[in-house]
Amino acid sequence: MPCISIDCVIFGFHDNQLKVLLLKIVNLDGYGLPAGFIYKDEHIDDSAKRILNERTGLHDIFLQQFYVFGDPRRCDNNITKITFENTGINPPKNNWLLQRFLTIGYYALVDFKAVNATPDYFSEDCEWHDIHDLPAMAMDHNDIVQQALVMLRTHLRYEPVGYNLMPEKFTMPELQKLYETVLDRKLDRRNFQRKMISYGILKRLKLRRLNVAHKAPYLYSFDLRKYHKALNEGFKSAW
Amino acid sequence: MPCISIDCVIFGFHDNQLKVLLLKIVNLDGYGLPAGFIYKDEHIDDSAKRILNERTGLHDIFLQQFYVFGDPRRCDNNITKITFENTGINPPKNNWLLQRFLTIGYYALVDFKAVNATPDYFSEDCEWHDIHDLPAMAMDHNDIVQQALVMLRTHLRYEPVGYNLMPEKFTMPELQKLYETVLDRKLDRRNFQRKMISYGILKRLKLRRLNVAHKAPYLYSFDLRKYHKALNEGFKSAW
Repeated sequence: MPCISIDCVIFGFHDNQLKVLLLKIVNLDGYGLPAGFIYKDEHIDDSAKRILNERTGLHDIFLQQFYVFGDPRRCDNNITKITFENTGINPPKNNWLLQRFLTIGYYALVDFKAVNATPDYFSEDCEWHDIHDLPAMAMDHNDIVQQALVMLRTHLRYEPVGYNLMPEKFTMPELQKLYETVLDRKLDRRNFQRKMISYGILKRLKLRRLNVAHKAPYLYSFDLRKYHKALNEGFKSAW
Repeated sequence: MPCISIDCVIFGFHDNQLKVLLLKIVNLDGYGLPAGFIYKDEHIDDSAKRILNERTGLHDIFLQQFYVFGDPRRCDNNITKITFENTGINPPKNNWLLQRFLTIGYYALVDFKAVNATPDYFSEDCEWHDIHDLPAMAMDHNDIVQQALVMLRTHLRYEPVGYNLMPEKFTMPELQKLYETVLDRKLDRRNFQRKMISYGILKRLKLRRLNVAHKAPYLYSFDLRKYHKALNEGFKSAW
């Protein structure tokens, strides 16, 4: 479909850092988000899944459409035009790819260790970058990442987040670390535990984490049935 | 811009009903949402504002982009094609208007009494309908309204809603009625009052509402500085 692209902000959690998967553009000292276009008969959600699968090798990714970026000036420094030139391909003159187009932002939460990062045709590398240390990116891609982060933080307020980002079994301090990393601030340990348990989406396991300095902490996993119910309906704790 | 439209769900609150502004399509026993297209050099938010202004006469409307509808089958029963035929205008063959296009959904919260509802070129009337009693609408417009309602309910959880929907001065029971109408369920009076006051977005006025049966209730208005701060930052009460 002409005049519309899809840009994907792929978040992973590793070493207590929130990371984003970026492409290093061929022959250009710059980065961009994994992106693509919409086939004529394709649902836009399927386009996003396809783009994510091509860059990560993953299926069944948690994926959320979050915003359409529609400033006419966002294409002033058109990455598509530049990458076409750099790769020696000439699109037809007056093609929509050389003009203004909108982009639909999706964000994905993925298991960092399961990703097989694969560059696309216009890029020479596909790398994870810490959200606090992002390189300059083409067009409005830095803004798109910031907006995805705002939406991720907002979603923390009323729906479960964490499955796909956490290992299968985790301690409460490990889950708190994910929240603190996404929110970029410290949380009170006891409030966090109380609130998280009140959501009813965790199972406390019989095993405890061994080989730690202090008292062995409980291990938890997500109760996926309740997790997905809360994902559809939101937490009850608000209104 | 080709292949993309904008659809607007305009909510108003009147007689304790949540209402939506719909267009009655010319020569067709059906309704549709106020909609339009994006000029070549126009920011999509400005397109939405323009469409809303044309249908309501209002400026400075609270307006929120909420979703892109991108199912390829949404244009199977293409309202644009039908209305073109009904109004005797023939768009060029193979024009994108006759094919699949995406639509960006915006919802607006407006002062019911300030609206000067004005039909567009393809419609013979512009009417308010109760959210519980919507007529059959063209294409996926019923789904678009439902999704807008889901988003409005979600936004109630973490940001202020009500300015534009309420009169300038209101009692706590009147504000609670708005929340109950949007959420479509009863809320506990004392919990509502406690929670709403904890958000710090209300000013209690010196005047009370007179001419009521029981003890004269306090009047409130929104503290617009704090209201807009909370709109940008969300309520603090979550994480």
